[in-house]
Amino acid sequence: MPSFTDSERSILPLLPMIYVAWADGELTDAELSALRAALPGDNEALRQWLDPAQPPSAVQLQDLLRRLEDAAAGIAAPEQHGLIDLGLAIAGLSSEAGAWAAARDALRTLEKTLGLYGTAASRRFFPAEATAPTATTLSWSPEAMAVLLDGPRASAKAKVRALLADPFFRHPGEINSAEYRALVLRWCQVLADRGFLDTLLPAAAGGRPDVGGFVATFATLATFDLSLLVKFGVQFGLFGCSILFLGSAEQRRRYLPDIFALRLPGCFAMTERAHGSNVRELETTATYDARRDEFVIDTPHPLAGKEWIGNAAEHGRMATVFAQLSVGGMQHGVHAFLVPIRRADGSPAPRVRITDCGHKMGLNGVDNGRLWFDSVRVPRDSLLSRFATIDDDGQYHSPIASPGRRFFTMLGALVGGRVSVAAASVSVAASALTIAIRYSARRRQFGPEGGPEVEILRYPTHRKRLLPRLAATYALHFAAEDLTTRYARAIEEDADMQEVEALAAGIKALASWHATDTVQTSRECCGGQGYAAVNRFAALKADSDVFSTFEGDNIVLMQLVAKSVLGQFKGRFSDTNPVSIIRNIAEIASGRVSEKNPFITRYTPPHHLRDGGFHSDILAGRTLDLTLAIARGLRRDLDDAEDPFAAFTAWQPAMVALARAHIEHTVHGQFRAVVEACTDPDLAAVLNDLCDLYALSRIEAGCGWFLENGYLTPAKSRAIRAEVTTLCDSLAADAVALVDAFAIPDEAIGAPIAMR
Amino acid sequence: MPSFTDSERSILPLLPMIYVAWADGELTDAELSALRAALPGDNEALRQWLDPAQPPSAVQLQDLLRRLEDAAAGIAAPEQHGLIDLGLAIAGLSSEAGAWAAARDALRTLEKTLGLYGTAASRRFFPAEATAPTATTLSWSPEAMAVLLDGPRASAKAKVRALLADPFFRHPGEINSAEYRALVLRWCQVLADRGFLDTLLPAAAGGRPDVGGFVATFATLATFDLSLLVKFGVQFGLFGCSILFLGSAEQRRRYLPDIFALRLPGCFAMTERAHGSNVRELETTATYDARRDEFVIDTPHPLAGKEWIGNAAEHGRMATVFAQLSVGGMQHGVHAFLVPIRRADGSPAPRVRITDCGHKMGLNGVDNGRLWFDSVRVPRDSLLSRFATIDDDGQYHSPIASPGRRFFTMLGALVGGRVSVAAASVSVAASALTIAIRYSARRRQFGPEGGPEVEILRYPTHRKRLLPRLAATYALHFAAEDLTTRYARAIEEDADMQEVEALAAGIKALASWHATDTVQTSRECCGGQGYAAVNRFAALKADSDVFSTFEGDNIVLMQLVAKSVLGQFKGRFSDTNPVSIIRNIAEIASGRVSEKNPFITRYTPPHHLRDGGFHSDILAGRTLDLTLAIARGLRRDLDDAEDPFAAFTAWQPAMVALARAHIEHTVHGQFRAVVEACTDPDLAAVLNDLCDLYALSRIEAGCGWFLENGYLTPAKSRAIRAEVTTLCDSLAADAVALVDAFAIPDEAIGAPIAMR
Repeated sequence: MPSFTDSERSILPLLPMIYVAWADGELTDAELSALRAALPGDNEALRQWLDPAQPPSAVQLQDLLRRLEDAAAGIAAPEQHGLIDLGLAIAGLSSEAGAWAAARDALRTLEKTLGLYGTAASRRFFPAEATAPTATTLSWSPEAMAVLLDGPRASAKAKVRALLADPFFRHPGEINSAEYRALVLRWCQVLADRGFLDTLLPAAAGGRPDVGGFVATFATLATFDLSLLVKFGVQFGLFGCSILFLGSAEQRRRYLPDIFALRLPGCFAMTERAHGSNVRELETTATYDARRDEFVIDTPHPLAGKEWIGNAAEHGRMATVFAQLSVGGMQHGVHAFLVPIRRADGSPAPRVRITDCGHKMGLNGVDNGRLWFDSVRVPRDSLLSRFATIDDDGQYHSPIASPGRRFFTMLGALVGGRVSVAAASVSVAASALTIAIRYSARRRQFGPEGGPEVEILRYPTHRKRLLPRLAATYALHFAAEDLTTRYARAIEEDADMQEVEALAAGIKALASWHATDTVQTSRECCGGQGYAAVNRFAALKADSDVFSTFEGDNIVLMQLVAKSVLGQFKGRFSDTNPVSIIRNIAEIASGRVSEKNPFITRYTPPHHLRDGGFHSDILAGRTLDLTLAIARGLRRDLDDAEDPFAAFTAWQPAMVALARAHIEHTVHGQFRAVVEACTDPDLAAVLNDLCDLYALSRIEAGCGWFLENGYLTPAKSRAIRAEVTTLCDSLAADAVALVDAFAIPDEAIGAPIAMR
Repeated sequence: MPSFTDSERSILPLLPMIYVAWADGELTDAELSALRAALPGDNEALRQWLDPAQPPSAVQLQDLLRRLEDAAAGIAAPEQHGLIDLGLAIAGLSSEAGAWAAARDALRTLEKTLGLYGTAASRRFFPAEATAPTATTLSWSPEAMAVLLDGPRASAKAKVRALLADPFFRHPGEINSAEYRALVLRWCQVLADRGFLDTLLPAAAGGRPDVGGFVATFATLATFDLSLLVKFGVQFGLFGCSILFLGSAEQRRRYLPDIFALRLPGCFAMTERAHGSNVRELETTATYDARRDEFVIDTPHPLAGKEWIGNAAEHGRMATVFAQLSVGGMQHGVHAFLVPIRRADGSPAPRVRITDCGHKMGLNGVDNGRLWFDSVRVPRDSLLSRFATIDDDGQYHSPIASPGRRFFTMLGALVGGRVSVAAASVSVAASALTIAIRYSARRRQFGPEGGPEVEILRYPTHRKRLLPRLAATYALHFAAEDLTTRYARAIEEDADMQEVEALAAGIKALASWHATDTVQTSRECCGGQGYAAVNRFAALKADSDVFSTFEGDNIVLMQLVAKSVLGQFKGRFSDTNPVSIIRNIAEIASGRVSEKNPFITRYTPPHHLRDGGFHSDILAGRTLDLTLAIARGLRRDLDDAEDPFAAFTAWQPAMVALARAHIEHTVHGQFRAVVEACTDPDLAAVLNDLCDLYALSRIEAGCGWFLENGYLTPAKSRAIRAEVTTLCDSLAADAVALVDAFAIPDEAIGAPIAMR
């Protein structure tokens, strides 16, 4: 070792520690003095290197590092050496040797006391080794998972994926709204030309449309471009389905073939500027003029203009216009009318005023516009007549007498929009996680002292941000699939939509909020790369933002869900037999008591924390408690309230909490059913982990409520948090395969940081 | 009453209830039967109207409504009538009269039992009254509040506001990146021409720059266009300040006048593709060539290229390039070099490769680019030489020996970037809330039965979404102001930056996350109008998104904050006198015990829940508990850990929780100090409410932890939630004035839905 001076050589075992003490610069002067006092010997070198008043120069320090590196090159890279061990090895001394042996233990203690975190500190003196990416052996088949996720509507999804592989469907990069609108229209035309709407067409001929296939098509398009999604949804879902579900057989025959071939582009004109959520009170009027057997459509004042109407600004020729019908001076509430809004040359129809809603946060490939009507006349058969007709004598008829009930029945017939947005929201979250998880499994940053940098997915903070959201995306995926099946069945059986409606409202709200949250977190997990438009978060974030607003504002939808839960609860007591009422209450109470059994609330062994029955009980208990509290509280507050409206709205935050609790419980139940039905035990095992992670992270998120209400003890709440971490760690190795199973084509993902 | 038949007249008092029962369609057949059974008399009309098998037709029902409305027109609109009361009034019967008197009480009970929520149900039969907007009398002066918010740097803010009133500064609407970049450059030039950087210029002559004024200018610009903000920050803050704080007096004299006049546009080239967060390990090299007395700058491999460099893609002529310095084969760590990157004609300098980062989620008015260097030679005086020099003999010198400490000292000198982003994040949140709160105070949707629709800010869900965020924005505003003052003072006194650095890291992280969250919630609170680009959320959301990433990834910054807290904690024990250690521990323990005193944890009277001392104690207790847990746990896990890196990173989530707890406590303390220092009692009162709302909503958000750790009983946790609601309700009336006090010019807000 010619590179060390004689005096340095006499303190060679200390030099690595001395280097680190100066280089890290984290030791105080007092600590340096303590170090000096504790070290054996007292020669020139020691004074030179440990004098706070005379620190080594930059060059001296770097020179020491280089010489230590050279010396370390001659010995094997240590797995766990401390700095003192390394020094002894460099000095060529065994740890048993000579004067140093006596000091060794004291020095090791010092090493720890000074916070040099001994065991791997010596790595910095050895060149970093490259590590091969961790090869993970999966215990389950990603192909089988993909098949399970695709479910019964796999062929509709496969058809869309095949289409998206066509080079015509590529993310356009920076593009202005005018070009984007034209491109999206061409994309829609390709979908129409290639028969993507054929499954809805039987309806034109009186057959049953395949609405499940339509939702699956829609959800799969959501993995690509959301302007295309919304344009497709406006034309075929909203405009087409308004005629499909509110029109007569004759109206379906007359219009649907042209609509589904995109020969007749149209709009769904319900929302008004002054009435977005409270659409029952919209103000556009349709007055029946018996003399000329026509309806006269009017916008009574500027704020009653239709707003945010997709397809209205540029491409739409006709609109389904929702208006308050008046016949012979009698008000019959909201009805839908087919109103031409453009001439063949594209100019506005007479007495129709159209303006462009202009640039939006996202979805700029969709031409949203505003519509005003100034005594626009349309013939009698413009009234969509499944729920209302005017006879030849000018008399109004409807199978539903109450205007309110009629309006909600009409909305129920259009629930497919919410079902579709729920499913598309899941696709958005799946896209975001596919990008973030693939990137995080490759991107390296920081690492152990002297070692190579590690993949950022190894960091617990990163796992905690991504894995619970992945579990929730699986959970909501199965819930949206189940919802689609129920919706399709209700259409098939022409059944009452009320149950599907409440479920659709709740899953749409939760899934769209989940998408917003997941896109944001995924972007942040990709750092600067997530900000580049090419990596897709820009569009995912801006385009999907409005999902929480359109097809029903989420807060309003949550009220609807809560009312439905309260209604069912009331239903359980509508039986006037006192015995059965008492039985019902006893049932409920016994459920609650067993859940709050002190043994259960304190019980924390892993098998219990991972017991789906426990998850289900505690989630059900929360829903029931919230239901009872609101039912009781509302009744109390409304009795003789001075301002019943204020008394009622005061319960809104509780209603939102109830709705969330109910939907989380429902989603979890659905996920458990999928796990139980899964016949592949390896697949079932990983799905079970995801299902547990979903439940436990929901319980963790709501732990304040569970602690407040005696469902958890503090120790159990902490145990649940620890179990979430354990699950995040164990699922991290499967994370890439779990997003691969979403089977989103690379062409649709588009993000360079996330190619397979 | 000629409009009722004789048989109808015989049941007239029942008709309003009968109408509601059918029209709302919420009663079951069983309930209708019950209603029929309970009603007195049995004539044809009753059979006709209450037969579930023979419901009235739509026309009959609407006709009944019209006749009831006509009849009601003759009597005074009731404040609180039930349906039966209305029916009696229409029938012209006093409630004491005849056969009906006997049935009255039974009927009223029925009304409630059927859930017709009697008291205001009759309103629907009367025309809706318009209500005047609620005029609120403020108890405090908005002007005085604005003065307080502006604080000591009011004149710098006023100067920017005056500039933004110039019609040249207008939101451009849809604009492509090329035009946007050119526009933003022109805006920057106006700022430079009008002397906005003059306060930094004294530094060129060796005086002290007014960095506080610079931060205030920056924060006020953030109320307008964030591309302008970032371009301004890159040119003057990052590029200019790199020379201001890392350069020599000679370098400042030579470059700053041109930089601050925007005659020399430049870049700050630190980030590399492979090293974004872990910049200490960046890979660009600067090798000193003694023979030619030059540095040779190299990008060793493509992924070591500089990335996201603002001003690089188009306008920058020079860059401050961070590179690993090697002198005579010795490595000295990261240093900064001035490197010309473009010729006068705008083409890249020789051996410099430049590409455009392309379209981004937001900030498209800034030309971010990538830089690669292929043996680019720069003279010796290109090294920014405050912290390192090469002498005439080619020898390296630095006042700081350790490369690590030197690097962090350099970063400390550049902490102004984080201080500025913290302040700008608060401006973003303030803009979003100004728009959402003004809109919510005007927008009406839904309302009591038969009454006018109400302002959406009256809904508790809406208040709960906006008011706590408003309180947090006030809290973070004062914290950012205080941070700016501390930063300016540290610069003024040439003091150590460590404390300011930790504070800046924490407030930057919390404020930028708060901005993201507040923009999102505010957008959702504005529904569809929030989605129109013209209403500003599009830009606010997309542009500010990267605030959580640039100037340090928030998660990484939180680790830094936690390490600083742990370091201070360790510092308290560095005194080796055992007595003082015991005293310290006793102090800590007594604080905790008094906080967890069973009396305190159960105590819920309002004056206690609103006691700032209680808030402060509980927030401090959390920080201390988390510190103790991590300090103990880390020590335990690191002793002899097999994988110390994994053992350390396992504590990351806890470190993030500690950092958040610490910063929330700090922010609250700062807010309390502002309240206490406020000499205007009316202002102090509303500020105190906001401060309480901030503290209580933070405690509510963390209630799981507080319950787990015995700081709150369930009853107290619920009481805190109720108190948050009470504060939201009481502050809602002041909300518009509270955002007005941010004094953001209408021109800067831009949103049509939010003009004063």
